[in-house]
Formats: sequence, C-alpha cells, structure tokens
Amino acid sequence: MRMLETATPAPPLEVSEWLNTKGPLALPDLAGKVVVLHAFQMLCPACVQLATPQMQKLQAMVEGSEVAVVGLHTVFEHHAAMTPVALKAFVHENRLSFPIGIDRHDDGDAIPLTMRAYGFEGTPSVVLIDRQGRMRFQGFGHQPDLALGVLIGSLVAETA
Amino acid sequence: MRMLETATPAPPLEVSEWLNTKGPLALPDLAGKVVVLHAFQMLCPACVQLATPQMQKLQAMVEGSEVAVVGLHTVFEHHAAMTPVALKAFVHENRLSFPIGIDRHDDGDAIPLTMRAYGFEGTPSVVLIDRQGRMRFQGFGHQPDLALGVLIGSLVAETA
Amino acid sequence: MRMLETATPAPPLEVSEWLNTKGPLALPDLAGKVVVLHAFQMLCPACVQLATPQMQKLQAMVEGSEVAVVGLHTVFEHHAAMTPVALKAFVHENRLSFPIGIDRHDDGDAIPLTMRAYGFEGTPSVVLIDRQGRMRFQGFGHQPDLALGVLIGSLVAETA
Amino acid sequence: MRMLETATPAPPLEVSEWLNTKGPLALPDLAGKVVVLHAFQMLCPACVQLATPQMQKLQAMVEGSEVAVVGLHTVFEHHAAMTPVALKAFVHENRLSFPIGIDRHDDGDAIPLTMRAYGFEGTPSVVLIDRQGRMRFQGFGHQPDLALGVLIGSLVAETA
Repeated sequence: MRMLETATPAPPLEVSEWLNTKGPLALPDLAGKVVVLHAFQMLCPACVQLATPQMQKLQAMVEGSEVAVVGLHTVFEHHAAMTPVALKAFVHENRLSFPIGIDRHDDGDAIPLTMRAYGFEGTPSVVLIDRQGRMRFQGFGHQPDLALGVLIGSLVAETA
Repeated sequence: MRMLETATPAPPLEVSEWLNTKGPLALPDLAGKVVVLHAFQMLCPACVQLATPQMQKLQAMVEGSEVAVVGLHTVFEHHAAMTPVALKAFVHENRLSFPIGIDRHDDGDAIPLTMRAYGFEGTPSVVLIDRQGRMRFQGFGHQPDLALGVLIGSLVAETA
Repeated sequence: MRMLETATPAPPLEVSEWLNTKGPLALPDLAGKVVVLHAFQMLCPACVQLATPQMQKLQAMVEGSEVAVVGLHTVFEHHAAMTPVALKAFVHENRLSFPIGIDRHDDGDAIPLTMRAYGFEGTPSVVLIDRQGRMRFQGFGHQPDLALGVLIGSLVAETA
Repeated sequence: MRMLETATPAPPLEVSEWLNTKGPLALPDLAGKVVVLHAFQMLCPACVQLATPQMQKLQAMVEGSEVAVVGLHTVFEHHAAMTPVALKAFVHENRLSFPIGIDRHDDGDAIPLTMRAYGFEGTPSVVLIDRQGRMRFQGFGHQPDLALGVLIGSLVAETA
C-alpha cells in the first residue's frame, strides 16, 4: 500500500440521499480533515464481513477528531435488492453511525455517478483524501487494519 | 447445549417459495436424515456474520450424507427490505447452496407461520430434527461449532 | 474426516510425569468414556494457536461428562527447550485444566514412546478412543471444530 | 491511544544476547527511523496469540523502510522455562525475523534491566520511538492494529 504519486483533487460526491447526517454533506465541508471514503454495497460479502465493520471501528476511534469516515453506497448490481429502504434497515441493524451517501444514478446506467468519477473497480473500495481535499490513496478490496492505519496516520500528521 | 427431554414431531414448514431446490420441499421428504433447520434473516448481523456462514460450512461438509441443511428465511421485521428479490441477491452473493424456504406470511401478521409454529424467539435459531422427524434441539442465537457438531454427531449415530 | 474402518485397541500411554491429575492415569481408567487424546508440543505454533485452545474449550464443555480430554506432550524436537519445567509454566500461563502426560523418552531416541506406538506424523495430532478403548479416529494437524464435534458426538451416542 | 505529551529520550537497551542480527544493536544505530519496540515473553499468552504475530506482520510490511521492529525478551517470571535456548526454539518455530534482544538480568533481581528502565507493567508492552530517539508512546497489553498503525504512520510522517 503506497500513497498515490500524484495528488489530484477528489471528485465531488454525487449523492441522492444522505443517512446519519443533518443535511447534505459535501467534501469542501470537510476541508482540514482527513477523509476516509468507504465505497460499499450492503450485499457485497467482503464489505459486510470486513470493510464496513472496519469503518465502524475506525469511526468509533476517530469520532470528533481530525479524521472523518464517510460511507458511499455505490450500487452497481442487484438494484432491486439494494434499495434505499433496504440500506436503511442494514444501517439500523449494523448500528452504523458514520454519514452514508447513496451514490446517484443517471437514468439507464447501472453504475452510479460518483463511482464512475472515481473509477472504482468494485466494492469495497476506499479513498483517502488529505486535509486539502486531494486524493492520496485509492484501493479496491479489503485493506488490512495495520496498513490502513499507517496511511491514515501519515495524512493526519500533515499540516493543513 | 442439551437435547430436548421430550421429542415431539417437528411442525411442517410453511413456505411460500423455495430457493436452491428443484421444487417444494417438505420435512417428510427428508425422513431418515438428520435435518439442521437454520432460521435466519438476511439483514440480521449475527446471522450474516456467524450462523449463515456456519451453515454453508456444514453444508460443504455433509453434502450427500445423512445430514440435510435447510434454511428458512423468517422475516419478522424490515419486511420492505428483506423481500424475495433481495434474498435471491443475498443467496447469490454469499454462494449459499443449501435449500432455503421463505417462511409464509399470513396477511396482517408480522411474524411468519413457521416461525410461530416453532416459537422462535428471533434469528438466528437452529432446530435439529432426528431421522424420525422429531425435534431434538432448538436454540436461539449462534451455537458454537464444537457443541453443534457434538449434537449433530449424536443424532447421526442413531439408527432410523 | 471419517472414522477408521478398523477399530484396534488404543496403545497404552507411556508417560514419565502427569500434570493436572492426582496420580498416574491409564486408558483403562477411562473405560466407558470417549477419550479425546491431544498430542502436542508447547512450542508448536499450530498447537498453541489452534489445537490446544480447542482442547481447553472442549474440556470446559465436557467436564464431568462421558468425554475425557487427555493431553500428551510428545516432544520430538527442541528437547532442551520443551522441558517439564517449561511445560508447567506453559500449562499455568494458558490455564489448561485437562490431564497432561509427558510422553516418555527412551535414552537416545528423539521420538518418545507413545508417539512411536501411535505413529503420529507430528503435532498436533488427535486420537478419538471409543468407550471400549478402541481407536476410531486419528488425525494430524488442526481439525475444525464442527467436524471434530460430529465425530465426538457419534462416539458419545454409542453404548459402552 | 494518544501520543505521550512529553517526549523524553528512550532509555538504552540492556541486552545480554541478540537474535536475528549480525551483532549487537543499539538505539542510536536506528536514529532516523521510527522504532517499534515489542517487549514480550515467549510464554505470555497475549504475546503469543496477539502481539508477537502482529509484530511479525508489521515486520513483513515495513522491512527495508523507515520503520524498524525490535523485539525485547523481558523475562520477569518462569525464568527456568524461558531460557535463551527456549527462546531460540520459539523464534525458529514462529519464523520471527525481526531483531530480538534478551533483556539483561542483574544477579538477584527477577525483573530485567531494560524492563525496569522503561517501567513496563508487564507483557506485552510496546514503545514507539521517533526518528530522534524519543519515546512518543508506551502501552501495556495488545494494541489494536488500526490504532497502532495510525500512531506509527504519524511518526513516519515527521521529518527527522
């Protein structure tokens, strides 16, 4: 796991509905913080078994600090199963407390807008965004705790 | 974990639709086998994390033997989320290969019929049915592998 | 995991010292019980990480029942490290409560006597002995809880 | 888990014998690197099950980088069991590849010298030493991967 060599601005989040927030959330609102963006699907086994619990654990650890965990429900398959009402039940049952946006679909395209903008290969994917809003790491699949922690820690140590 | 002191006939399965079977399945079809009945909900965390993977592991171990694993999707909450189409996506994504019945709902009752007949307290629940079709164990919550294995083994050793 | 096709009498335990017992233990003392014999070395990683904790878990589950867990410290390498005093510290630190015999060495042979009599390939090894003192299963390496449980349960169900 | 508020120089390592090194190692040799010092005992269950495997995993991840994992065998109990020859067998069997020093004993004191200098409460303990040789974190007990990773990452990001 290495940081990206070129740090480009993180694309905006195109979200049709937010859960666990008081209102819509945008990346510029989080400027000055390190953002851990967790792209997942509620029926993706590697998300449910590994990556989403990892993010909830991270959330419990960093809440109120300079790190913000943000979930993104990027449904690109089984659209009839992973509806907003189903996601809300999933979030409730798993007691997820970090903000979660539902990635917006354009009519007729299976892959939602933010997923396309970031070029995610699938779920789970994770993006680390630095205090200046730049993408510094993007990974597909579950990232081990130790390696993910080292990356997050090194971004936290940077001054804004 | 102890066997039930009184062995009563296992109530019939009231199922509205079967997955992973060629047609409807009934307990009498399994006479002579030890049946492990796994009552679950696809959005119940202890099912998804523990009990359902345990059943798939058991299925891989006993397939073609005298032990039959049967799933029962007993939806008693979040009905709009845990629909048949969502269950099919869940089964596909988690590569579950054992037969799964959808517990039938009477109009107007949140708790489905088989769940009521067995008196399940929630999900996951597991029932062990002996070769003669009698309930010999019923447990609520995840059962450890070692203890569940001992119970199954002792029922397998009984002659029909 | 299948039972052995031929059930032969379990060889006697050749033990130089017993831990966690009031005195020497012999297999005939356990006639009528199902014996789970756990051959291990205190510095064997698969023993320490998997098989020995499994046996302590089994011991907690079956204590006072018709199943007896018996450990056998079969040192065949690193003899200067895995001494009786080291084993006692290991047993104390890991709070092992089942009886443990130290497999006896003949002068000049690295492999101890009971290990040779059973023909263990290494550690961990497990042997299941039925109520009549016959070997019914022998396995090298860690055995999964579910499969081991099924074997134990089926032996428990046999009448002595 | 928080960094120490006051960064004091890390006490020197008082070591009677080094394993996995070409010769004696001293903290000044590692100046410019972040040092993760792992104090353990080979028969301490939380070390063997959690902390030592974590350090080997960290070693595999950071080898050749700006992070150095250093083990310290701080024997303060069961001295007759945890001898150098036993430690060497333990290191061999568990394929530990990071440098490990044996904490030196003064005649007549159960607690070895480096352990006393650092004031470890027991094992496992971990100390993080920054690029300038200053102690920045000290913790007793197993530290979760995610939290430990964040601390290491933030020290890596500091310039020497």
